[in-house]
Amino acid sequence: MTFTPTDYLPYDFANRRHIGPSPSEMADMCEVLGVADLDALIDETVPKAIRQETPLNFGKPKSERELLRYMREVAAKNRVLTSMIGQGYHGTVTPPAIQRNILENPAWYTAYTPYQPEISQGRLEALLNFQTMVSDLTGLEVANASLLDESTACAEAMTMAQRVAKSKAKGFFVDRDCHPQNIAVMKTRAEPLGIEVIVGNPEKLDPEAVFGAIFQYPGTYGHVRDFTEQMEALHAANAVGIVAADPLALTVLKEPGAMGADIAVGSTQRFGVPMGYGGPHAAYMACRDAYKRAMPGRIVGVSVDSHGNRAYRLSLQTREQHIRREKATSNVCTAQALLAVMAGMYAVFHGPEGLKAIAQRIHRKTVRLARGLEEAGFKVDPQAYFDTITVDVRTLQSAVLKSARDEGVNLRRVGEYRVGITLDECTRPSNIEAVWRAFGITRKDDDYTPVYKMPEDMLRSSDYLTHPIFHMNRAETEMMRYMRRLADRDLALDRAMIPLGSCTMKLNSAAEMMPVSWREFSSLHPFAPANQALGYTHLVSDLSQKLCAITGYDDFSMQPNSGAQGEYAGLLTIAAFHRANGEGHRNVCLIPMSAHGTNPASAQMVGWKVVPVKSARNGDIDLQDFRAKAEKHAEALAGCMITYPSTHGVFEETVQDVCKITHEHGGQVYIDGANLNAMVGLSRPGDLGGDVSHLNLHKTFCIPHGGGGPGMGPIGVKAHLVPHLPGHPEVGGEEGPVSAAPYGSPSILPISWAYILMMGGEGLTQATRVAILNANYIAKRLEGAYDILYRGRGDWVAHECIIDTRPFAESADVTVDDIAKRLADCGFHAPTMSWPVAGTLMVEPTESETKAELDRFCDAMLAIREEIREIEEGRMDRANNPLKNAPHTMEDLVREWDRPYSREQGCFPPGAFRVDKYWPPVNRVDNVFGDRNLVCICPPMEEYAEAAE
Amino acid sequence: MTFTPTDYLPYDFANRRHIGPSPSEMADMCEVLGVADLDALIDETVPKAIRQETPLNFGKPKSERELLRYMREVAAKNRVLTSMIGQGYHGTVTPPAIQRNILENPAWYTAYTPYQPEISQGRLEALLNFQTMVSDLTGLEVANASLLDESTACAEAMTMAQRVAKSKAKGFFVDRDCHPQNIAVMKTRAEPLGIEVIVGNPEKLDPEAVFGAIFQYPGTYGHVRDFTEQMEALHAANAVGIVAADPLALTVLKEPGAMGADIAVGSTQRFGVPMGYGGPHAAYMACRDAYKRAMPGRIVGVSVDSHGNRAYRLSLQTREQHIRREKATSNVCTAQALLAVMAGMYAVFHGPEGLKAIAQRIHRKTVRLARGLEEAGFKVDPQAYFDTITVDVRTLQSAVLKSARDEGVNLRRVGEYRVGITLDECTRPSNIEAVWRAFGITRKDDDYTPVYKMPEDMLRSSDYLTHPIFHMNRAETEMMRYMRRLADRDLALDRAMIPLGSCTMKLNSAAEMMPVSWREFSSLHPFAPANQALGYTHLVSDLSQKLCAITGYDDFSMQPNSGAQGEYAGLLTIAAFHRANGEGHRNVCLIPMSAHGTNPASAQMVGWKVVPVKSARNGDIDLQDFRAKAEKHAEALAGCMITYPSTHGVFEETVQDVCKITHEHGGQVYIDGANLNAMVGLSRPGDLGGDVSHLNLHKTFCIPHGGGGPGMGPIGVKAHLVPHLPGHPEVGGEEGPVSAAPYGSPSILPISWAYILMMGGEGLTQATRVAILNANYIAKRLEGAYDILYRGRGDWVAHECIIDTRPFAESADVTVDDIAKRLADCGFHAPTMSWPVAGTLMVEPTESETKAELDRFCDAMLAIREEIREIEEGRMDRANNPLKNAPHTMEDLVREWDRPYSREQGCFPPGAFRVDKYWPPVNRVDNVFGDRNLVCICPPMEEYAEAAE
Repeated sequence: MTFTPTDYLPYDFANRRHIGPSPSEMADMCEVLGVADLDALIDETVPKAIRQETPLNFGKPKSERELLRYMREVAAKNRVLTSMIGQGYHGTVTPPAIQRNILENPAWYTAYTPYQPEISQGRLEALLNFQTMVSDLTGLEVANASLLDESTACAEAMTMAQRVAKSKAKGFFVDRDCHPQNIAVMKTRAEPLGIEVIVGNPEKLDPEAVFGAIFQYPGTYGHVRDFTEQMEALHAANAVGIVAADPLALTVLKEPGAMGADIAVGSTQRFGVPMGYGGPHAAYMACRDAYKRAMPGRIVGVSVDSHGNRAYRLSLQTREQHIRREKATSNVCTAQALLAVMAGMYAVFHGPEGLKAIAQRIHRKTVRLARGLEEAGFKVDPQAYFDTITVDVRTLQSAVLKSARDEGVNLRRVGEYRVGITLDECTRPSNIEAVWRAFGITRKDDDYTPVYKMPEDMLRSSDYLTHPIFHMNRAETEMMRYMRRLADRDLALDRAMIPLGSCTMKLNSAAEMMPVSWREFSSLHPFAPANQALGYTHLVSDLSQKLCAITGYDDFSMQPNSGAQGEYAGLLTIAAFHRANGEGHRNVCLIPMSAHGTNPASAQMVGWKVVPVKSARNGDIDLQDFRAKAEKHAEALAGCMITYPSTHGVFEETVQDVCKITHEHGGQVYIDGANLNAMVGLSRPGDLGGDVSHLNLHKTFCIPHGGGGPGMGPIGVKAHLVPHLPGHPEVGGEEGPVSAAPYGSPSILPISWAYILMMGGEGLTQATRVAILNANYIAKRLEGAYDILYRGRGDWVAHECIIDTRPFAESADVTVDDIAKRLADCGFHAPTMSWPVAGTLMVEPTESETKAELDRFCDAMLAIREEIREIEEGRMDRANNPLKNAPHTMEDLVREWDRPYSREQGCFPPGAFRVDKYWPPVNRVDNVFGDRNLVCICPPMEEYAEAAE
Repeated sequence: MTFTPTDYLPYDFANRRHIGPSPSEMADMCEVLGVADLDALIDETVPKAIRQETPLNFGKPKSERELLRYMREVAAKNRVLTSMIGQGYHGTVTPPAIQRNILENPAWYTAYTPYQPEISQGRLEALLNFQTMVSDLTGLEVANASLLDESTACAEAMTMAQRVAKSKAKGFFVDRDCHPQNIAVMKTRAEPLGIEVIVGNPEKLDPEAVFGAIFQYPGTYGHVRDFTEQMEALHAANAVGIVAADPLALTVLKEPGAMGADIAVGSTQRFGVPMGYGGPHAAYMACRDAYKRAMPGRIVGVSVDSHGNRAYRLSLQTREQHIRREKATSNVCTAQALLAVMAGMYAVFHGPEGLKAIAQRIHRKTVRLARGLEEAGFKVDPQAYFDTITVDVRTLQSAVLKSARDEGVNLRRVGEYRVGITLDECTRPSNIEAVWRAFGITRKDDDYTPVYKMPEDMLRSSDYLTHPIFHMNRAETEMMRYMRRLADRDLALDRAMIPLGSCTMKLNSAAEMMPVSWREFSSLHPFAPANQALGYTHLVSDLSQKLCAITGYDDFSMQPNSGAQGEYAGLLTIAAFHRANGEGHRNVCLIPMSAHGTNPASAQMVGWKVVPVKSARNGDIDLQDFRAKAEKHAEALAGCMITYPSTHGVFEETVQDVCKITHEHGGQVYIDGANLNAMVGLSRPGDLGGDVSHLNLHKTFCIPHGGGGPGMGPIGVKAHLVPHLPGHPEVGGEEGPVSAAPYGSPSILPISWAYILMMGGEGLTQATRVAILNANYIAKRLEGAYDILYRGRGDWVAHECIIDTRPFAESADVTVDDIAKRLADCGFHAPTMSWPVAGTLMVEPTESETKAELDRFCDAMLAIREEIREIEEGRMDRANNPLKNAPHTMEDLVREWDRPYSREQGCFPPGAFRVDKYWPPVNRVDNVFGDRNLVCICPPMEEYAEAAE
């Protein structure tokens, strides 16, 4: 016998782990498609004119083990000092039970945004807890389910104030004690909208000059001021008052609602979410009930299902950009769901007693630290504070900062002569002593007699977190089971394909996720000295280079922390470019009708006029119309925004013409990167003529969706735009920042980097090819049963396909909603509904799904088509059938079964697992009821007790 | 307004996180019990005579954050070098998906042993995969679900061989090429049983002199020999042939079955389970079909449920020690389930192609390394090998070893003049070059031309892992969903209380679990030089000291890696003590009738005679009988084995008398530590008169049960026994080892240590008190409905209570089994069944359960009692009722409902969650069918495909 070597590569991450179909499955699929092989399919599908010439080459891809070893080396270049910088970012203790059971649990992090409420009740409850917490702490009636970061929340509050204020003044007052990054981001946002930002002393506020005002509480330098007078003055002038507040301080200090504030914003980072060098964390926004319909972002609300049982859902969605397009008031279309869930759980975990105890401990430590400094003769300011003080050190500022760093502590540089010190729940006596040593004081921190230096007239007198959820038994056993129960109510990627067109729900591999938990990545303050963040520098630089190679751009900015934020930043970059060329008047943006709703919303935010361009019959951009409009607006043309492949899931052959026309008329080309998963390795937006693109790292590059955030939307630009990328007050740059932190949400960048390192150029390209194969396989299998809208060359689709369900409305009274809910019975999350075409389903399987899972989905869809046929042919009732009654719940099985079809047919349609059946916890949710009766905090005790069982 | 400081302690792990009932819940419970407070209850419950005088004091307990920081410091004292020591322990790549989704997932690690098959189908399937893998790789028909480690597996194989061999010879041949620790453990085990171990050259084997023989394959020094001739010779002499084989080598080399072996054993550590400084990992055992009923350990088998659907279960349980007591052939009563699940998943993850590729790569690297040495003039042995070579370095042995360490590599010291080198899947070219440098060779490892040096006549020709489960799509998406589906089928602590009497299913907190994954703990070879393991030294030493303080003993041995192993080691220690005193003849052991079944089984293993002692009517030891028997056997009295509090869950007041009597008659007292959770901080076995005890760290000290292992059973002894604790060839000591590694399974010791450090002395004591409170609360609430057997002083129980269900057999035809299965409908794992008294349920809630969960359980039990009453009173059919039909499945709801009770009543009895209902995936499993038709590998393809949907 002789030895037979095998050619199997067990550590090939790309082909063995990330890409779903095995080589033999792919061969079978090609046969179904009638193509010789994958090469042939791609050649037929992707126009030669747009193919990139040089294959991607990033050297030998790393195995999972090599990746993790390399990541450790890079992580080790970050030096984690104790941060006392403050400025909105704080050390915090993530309870291990929350870390393990939420942050590191695919049931939570792979979930999608809860647009399908029936299969999202767990995270909707968790987000409702978050909203209740925010509402209680701020003393305002309504809260949303989180925003991107505190600075953008401030900016959103500003524009919201403009919308709701009766005052028509153009000014907006900003407390000079706001965090500098908040001021900077508000300025960026205000400029294109013509809002005049007035930074000043709240004592000097002129209410008549402004439509609104924002105050930081406590102030960035530690002051605790009561803004009740300002609020009264603002209200008298028909203006709106906003407080940016630290939610932990609100457990001991008077809440914004009690001051008369109309809106409150802030960051919940210190509620158990690591600093992560800037993010991701969940910002919050709360407002008076009267303003709720003007609030940006997502709001979880309470409604009922078709049996009248309580059910959660996203409320007031018609406010959102995907509906209102250029009439949208904000382009916010994601939240920081995973982080909001964590912050909410932190509040559940500690309860009001625990949060108050934590706040008090931090304050007492601050008092001890301050006393030590004062007794050594230093001048400490302010006299009353919560957790932050500043010390006047005259010309010794740099010396003290350095001496502190030598002691392992980062302090804050404040002005020329002061240093700022902020304490948090992680501060230990040894840290306090280290600070003293940095000031030359040798002293033991051993006198723990409690002393309080908060202003007595500012103490909080109202209750908060009174709801039973914050008073459940906080034993870890109970908490663990609560988190598990919520997770089990939801359908995430760890149980089934989520074939959401345009959302690219691909594998988020365990190896990619691991570094996120490492303290070297998670525990850095965003404004820590650059030489302590060399690991991040290396990561950002290498990732940028690789993204440049992938896209054909010349540089990247990692600052935008969502896709929509990326669009906005990209348009700002173009606007700055025009301004620099003396063409600041250019303000017309051509956008095809089929564009993502965020496109016009973002254009609106930079003050541009949106000129819509028609679609041709085949769904492509109508080139004639495009040319006509470009010519018509040539003088004022700022640019165009297109998506490639198109939002119809087709590789348009005219994309280069579109870019050329735009350039000829002085415009710049924005190519939306939402569909980049169909291009990586095959085609580069930069080569097609794009000047700027944002990439959704949470789509194409494996950052998990987290149940509705975090995301990352870095932008790539051509060389001429590089000088105009967003800057940041902490790291320089010409232009204003769009996010609170210089690199957006850097602690999740390791995920995307890991993905690229393990896939290699060839693997990334293969992923794209298989994404196209999978989409075409589904289109092929559903052919005949459903019409597939929009196809490209050779009748192929790109990485997604649109299924037309409109005919069934008439033929069977079946809506796209009915089909979506019926898919839940089959154990699937519905595809994207009614977008980009109302009444259709857009299916994007991604490359990570195996043939078996694709077949399960197709079997389900085909069976649904047969159910529709039964209705069409009169064999099934038009009002009482499995589609109308979907989704079916376990309760349906228990109660009397009076349906004209069997339990079996109702609950176990093709596709549904038998033993491992996923049961939606509620029947179909009533959307209208929920919007009419908006309840967006946890329902009262009695109801809660009933529902508990 | 003035400031009101709170006294809430948010970081109090003991009282806020570990202990279930909150202070106010405890007050309510005391009121139900009619006691003033917890102090009063404990004073009434725990006899004053046994109370310890000094409270436990370990200083200030650590918060979770402090604990993790401290653990990092300790971990950093371990230096992780690249191990090329081999000797049965290998570097391996744990796939991140398996690490995250199994090792770090409470759904897997908090599960109990799958004795209740209906709620354990997930891990039973995973273990069946493991068995199938072992059976395939070894070429033997039957495999068990894992053993503790390879060395004890060898010892078990030896005693099994003695049981099944027709030969009556007393000798047992051991290949001198067996791993030294295997030889040592077999010698330890052989000695008390009168087996003569003959270590020698297999060529010189005298088959007539032995009942069996064991051979290492490949040999510890790398040789690959064919033992077919030896097997034939053994069979001719009616003796049994055993091969201890590396399962990875079996993917390329002729399997033991093909050589004619009767039994195969080995370790599956290198299948993705980190070395962990020695453990835990899963050993395996396989045998010919004819011997299956003699095989020790657990065997998962395939049976059917009451509807004829396939269902898995533990087979042949009547072989086990808890049934056979002193007639047991082994005291093995646990497995390494969690690790076996991981190893099985590793095989599923890689499939046969992947495993073979990994084996080939390792071999090719070994060839390259060897060639480099040979070309530099070194003499390498053997000429044909798999992954291990030795090099003759004459007097330079120490120099080469040191030089290798300086290069970051540990090699093996072999004899006086050789060093051993073993490669594994982690070996990289840089490691090979480092070894060369250690030998003074400067050379690049860059010639990857495949060369094979395995003996051609030893290559494997048969297929393996042909079952579809090993050919499923190995994309991570698919694997993740498979692991989730299996986990969801099981009911573990992350969903419900598991009130198993004597098993102490308490919280395994996330913070305690985290360090287990750290490479500083997980990646050490057990025989790495001691100065590379200073972190472990520190941990073991401090943990030992604290356990001494808790128990009143003077020293601890961490070697026993299960409770039963601890018993055995304890008795060996006593035997050695007697021998050292010239009283080696002492061989009588008094054991109360109510003892754990392992007690007599362990006594049997050290060659002692078991003399049972009667129980008094109240369940206590019959002191008169005890005294009489001690006197009668005074000459030969070796000792007694008692459990405290008794297995009846009562604090006997006579325990000190029992110890005194034993000592007076020359015996030593073994106190079984199974129930230590009722004593910690209140009473110390060492003070009561115990000479030795084992502690179940997986019960009292928070190591999770892992679905049936790992466990840890260290023994504490009084000073006079210290010299007789188990030694180990690698670290010295007088006596023989009982486990493969010097510290058993050290990588899970951080869990117990973390628990103690976070609880502190006061917290540990409070845990004990609350465990007693919780048990008495249940007893009180069930009073009237059920008889509670055995109570102690003041009619209180200790930490568990026994519920008598025997009367219902006659009154309602209801068995304890019916109640257990009905509890699954209520969403609970049944309490311990029919032990220590047949027909009863023993309930131990532990301190970690909240009042709400205790009430949920009591509500369920009371409702069950009412159901029984309905039968008793003729309102419900005696054969067709919710108890007899339990557990109910979702399938029951779907199919025609012809029961004389409603769906609602059947499926949602009190206790059951509504929305979050746990559904057993199968109906009641037929045990008899399964034992009669033993199938313990995955069923054939066709059946599998059917079941897949």
